Amino acid sequence: MYKLVLMRHGESTWNLDNRFTGWTDVDLTEKGVAEARAAGQLLKESGFSFDVAYTSVLKRAIRTLWNTLDTMDLMWIPVQHDWRLNERHYGALQGLNKAETAAKYGDEQVMVWRRSYDTPPLPLTKDDPRTDFNDPRYATLDAAQIPLTECLKDTVARVMPAWEDSIAPAIKSGKQVLISAHGNSLRALIKMLDGVSDEDIVGLNIPNGQPLVYELDADLKPIKHYYLGDQEAIQAALAAVANQGRAK
Amino acid sequence: MYKLVLMRHGESTWNLDNRFTGWTDVDLTEKGVAEARAAGQLLKESGFSFDVAYTSVLKRAIRTLWNTLDTMDLMWIPVQHDWRLNERHYGALQGLNKAETAAKYGDEQVMVWRRSYDTPPLPLTKDDPRTDFNDPRYATLDAAQIPLTECLKDTVARVMPAWEDSIAPAIKSGKQVLISAHGNSLRALIKMLDGVSDEDIVGLNIPNGQPLVYELDADLKPIKHYYLGDQEAIQAALAAVANQGRAK
Repeated sequence: MYKLVLMRHGESTWNLDNRFTGWTDVDLTEKGVAEARAAGQLLKESGFSFDVAYTSVLKRAIRTLWNTLDTMDLMWIPVQHDWRLNERHYGALQGLNKAETAAKYGDEQVMVWRRSYDTPPLPLTKDDPRTDFNDPRYATLDAAQIPLTECLKDTVARVMPAWEDSIAPAIKSGKQVLISAHGNSLRALIKMLDGVSDEDIVGLNIPNGQPLVYELDADLKPIKHYYLGDQEAIQAALAAVANQGRAK
Repeated sequence: MYKLVLMRHGESTWNLDNRFTGWTDVDLTEKGVAEARAAGQLLKESGFSFDVAYTSVLKRAIRTLWNTLDTMDLMWIPVQHDWRLNERHYGALQGLNKAETAAKYGDEQVMVWRRSYDTPPLPLTKDDPRTDFNDPRYATLDAAQIPLTECLKDTVARVMPAWEDSIAPAIKSGKQVLISAHGNSLRALIKMLDGVSDEDIVGLNIPNGQPLVYELDADLKPIKHYYLGDQEAIQAALAAVANQGRAK
């Protein structure tokens, strides 16, 4: 039996500002750093250790990982930075306040943008300063691989190869794996692991900075999963996420 | 022409306590963190960027690297943690105060231990709690690879394969490389790069947290090298290192 730990980054400055973030490289808040350190403490006290960690190329996930590993005295383990674990690209919504966008377009339209499995938000135009074509972290990619918007289906399509060619083989080789990533790249992994339907996955919320443990059989099929730690706090964090993006 | 940047970690708690550190995994002081951030700022202002970084498995070098990369907005680049870039193992001296050791054994004996190329300090006994046999970061090594003491010659012998099989090929492939390491693993690299004699390398001092730039030709032979930044501050830092380990 294998164990895999998934973790959404701690609170970011744009979680706090209630903005659509996507590939925008915003940092953690102080609370976000504290969440990451608390997660590390909890993992250590619960007897977890890791041989390798995977994260995105976005600093809110990397700093979450650094703080977790630091607290666990595991700064020295190998870390793979993989753009395919990035958050869903949020297209032309990136940078907009969720509540203002909801007030302007209505809760229903925003919920479609946020929660449709296969309808992406309006794309960035190619000359938008928010595009990532000139960012050195994506310099090795073809321009066609750099999104201008994504629906969750698109995110799933790029996360799956990272699982198949990199993460799953590491788990099967006996390595204890930690993944520090984002709401939608983690949804993609959970959809695959638990066979969640297209309809249901868009309603699944993942709280910031809470270690989510999967126990997997020899074929990497889940036996069970659970959040570590205080279950009331986790329910409160889940409710907070679910209420983001409403006008009031 | 290639550029390579070497950097010794910032001030550690045992630099401050004037203790022999070796493979002991002590952390940076606040000043050490500030040195690393200043180095990052200096590198950024001087137009440097990096595609990959190499460091040891000791947190004073890793935290130096993290703070430098964070300041440069390069948290996302690949980082290789390599035990072969660790500090020289200081044997039975690890943990002892340098000035107390000098007062007890005399400046001359301590200078032999610190500065002989091929005479190691007394080894740890195999049952000494300071040995690294049970440390998970060395779990993949043969017991014979885990030192009980090292002279600089021993350190050179393990650093060279890291250069040859990993760092040099990365530089030749056009990658801009940063190495965050330790006084003696950096001496090993400098000895090789500049062809420094066994006698001279032991007297070469490297200040904490100062980027040392090597410009290399197509065969990775040095064209020139220089410390970035304020040259007076660097001379002061060098003098401070040279005076460590004296009785007063």
